[in-house]
Amino acid sequence: MIHTDALVIGAGPAGLFTVFQLGLQGIQAQVVDVRDEPGGQCAALYPDKPIYDIPGVPVCSGHELTQNLLRQIAPFATGFHWNQLVSSLEQQADGRWLVSTQRGHQVIEQFLARTVVVAAGVGAFVPKELKIDGLDTFLDQQLFYKAPPPQLVSDKAIVVVGGEDEAVAQAITLAQAGQARSVTLVHRRDVLQASAAALAEFAALRSAGRIHFQAGQVTGIETSDQHLTGLTLSTPQDQTLSLALDVLRVCQGISPKLGPLSQWGLAMERKQLTVDTATFATSAPGIFAVGDVITYPGKKKLIVCGFHEATLAAFAAAALVNPQASSVLQYTSSSALLQQRLGILPSP
Amino acid sequence: MIHTDALVIGAGPAGLFTVFQLGLQGIQAQVVDVRDEPGGQCAALYPDKPIYDIPGVPVCSGHELTQNLLRQIAPFATGFHWNQLVSSLEQQADGRWLVSTQRGHQVIEQFLARTVVVAAGVGAFVPKELKIDGLDTFLDQQLFYKAPPPQLVSDKAIVVVGGEDEAVAQAITLAQAGQARSVTLVHRRDVLQASAAALAEFAALRSAGRIHFQAGQVTGIETSDQHLTGLTLSTPQDQTLSLALDVLRVCQGISPKLGPLSQWGLAMERKQLTVDTATFATSAPGIFAVGDVITYPGKKKLIVCGFHEATLAAFAAAALVNPQASSVLQYTSSSALLQQRLGILPSP
Repeated sequence: MIHTDALVIGAGPAGLFTVFQLGLQGIQAQVVDVRDEPGGQCAALYPDKPIYDIPGVPVCSGHELTQNLLRQIAPFATGFHWNQLVSSLEQQADGRWLVSTQRGHQVIEQFLARTVVVAAGVGAFVPKELKIDGLDTFLDQQLFYKAPPPQLVSDKAIVVVGGEDEAVAQAITLAQAGQARSVTLVHRRDVLQASAAALAEFAALRSAGRIHFQAGQVTGIETSDQHLTGLTLSTPQDQTLSLALDVLRVCQGISPKLGPLSQWGLAMERKQLTVDTATFATSAPGIFAVGDVITYPGKKKLIVCGFHEATLAAFAAAALVNPQASSVLQYTSSSALLQQRLGILPSP
Repeated sequence: MIHTDALVIGAGPAGLFTVFQLGLQGIQAQVVDVRDEPGGQCAALYPDKPIYDIPGVPVCSGHELTQNLLRQIAPFATGFHWNQLVSSLEQQADGRWLVSTQRGHQVIEQFLARTVVVAAGVGAFVPKELKIDGLDTFLDQQLFYKAPPPQLVSDKAIVVVGGEDEAVAQAITLAQAGQARSVTLVHRRDVLQASAAALAEFAALRSAGRIHFQAGQVTGIETSDQHLTGLTLSTPQDQTLSLALDVLRVCQGISPKLGPLSQWGLAMERKQLTVDTATFATSAPGIFAVGDVITYPGKKKLIVCGFHEATLAAFAAAALVNPQASSVLQYTSSSALLQQRLGILPSP
């Protein structure tokens, strides 16, 4: 159990800047993220794409923005907790919040937090599922949403489902490794979206008979003796095919999933948390929310707005944690206290 | 008369970022500022001081922030109008705003604007006045709030009033030039605030008899034949002194002055404009306001908040100017239209 003044859910730009503003207020934060690295959507969706609308930064990539925000919070001792989803928030008798995280169905960590700032973006980015009745049963045994473990690949018939970069790259990697008995890429139509280099490599491996390709929509599965043995496909010509396999690797991209957040009992409107724009307080005392997860009149899902929201939420959270602290606004350019907290001036 | 879709009053960070967000919305802006350069308070008060709380920018000076914001708006053809104060806003029958600027009492420019964004900060930074009855009459003849013209200095008895860097530097400059008959620095007490180097130079000139110093509070003036002939001083020992002079140079620093803005009929609260936080609209249709000039529940006078306010104000102004435009939010990292406006992609 980790005791903390502030728990920030989500390590995207809004979450990281919340940590910064809390740090300026003298409050150390713990941060939980479902991904295994900081940056949120910036890192998950467009790490290398240039962003042009961060104020005072004419151009930067999502990766660079994340790195700069991490540099900015470096003066503060922040606890990061990766690869875990916040599964529940329960208010305790003393007003604090018991926050539990999990990975899969396993509880990973528990926090007892005086304030919580939800910066969960559009939710956790999870692989898009292949929705076929009964398929779930084989998850992590024969069905994989990530690269299958090497020992399960050896001498097996592998089917990769998907038609974009990640699926093409996965099929190439498996074929080049040469461990599998066969590698087949299945996509609903005969057009793949990937870089010219990847498509050329794919074509070469296909000519050499090391990758097979089958156009078709997955419509069902075949099982035998509690094992997954094949897929049923409907081809673009409306034929039905059966494709035998030992291992199924699904690569259909990622999509955001709000997850358990919608069950926490916080007031919501169209799948977003409603907040008071003076404090970015949610409907629950001590819980604030910032960034793409919130809505309010005029809300724009822009990083620049998340930074403002993070700032006001941090002030409001700080006022809860330290009710006696002065409310006089201080500036980093002139305040000795803030510069001490930033490590620029020595601590007294 | 300049016709424009958007007029931005104030070229500080909030005003410059308003120009950027308007540009992304396809709207060209005209900018008026009372100073002779961009940057607002950042440039006037702390151009070289490091700022640590711009999101994604671990440290930058006020000057660097201003330069980066200028680089960011470089793709847009912006009209800048320096050294003029907006003196009046009058709504026309067609809803547009007639905006007049002045320098001193002279009208400099007129704009006919469909929307106006007030980003006037804490007001225009003007020299702090020496408030003595009857002194005003001599402004720009014998009384100066800037360096007096060289032809008025020659063989004259000059008194400089003030006790900080600028006053000490002005006394040194006048003494070193050697044109004046005498240079006397007057400050209410016998302690000057300036750099060690400036104070050493000052002491050397004083030892050499080239600068005189007199501690005392200015309590009155002496005049003869419609000329200013001297000051009455009250010393720290409560003595009354008379100090003869030909030219009076006042260097008491600068302070913000809201100026005519408070006469425009916009709803205000404690000298700040009240706004709707969904659009940052003021009480007058078509007039928006952002940055330190506004107040709303939770408002913090921080640059990061000004950037958010500028963003929402620009969206609302754009919706007024182009009511037919799509309201679907586009991102600079992915929108071809925005990248064309930024000059990153060629225009179609």
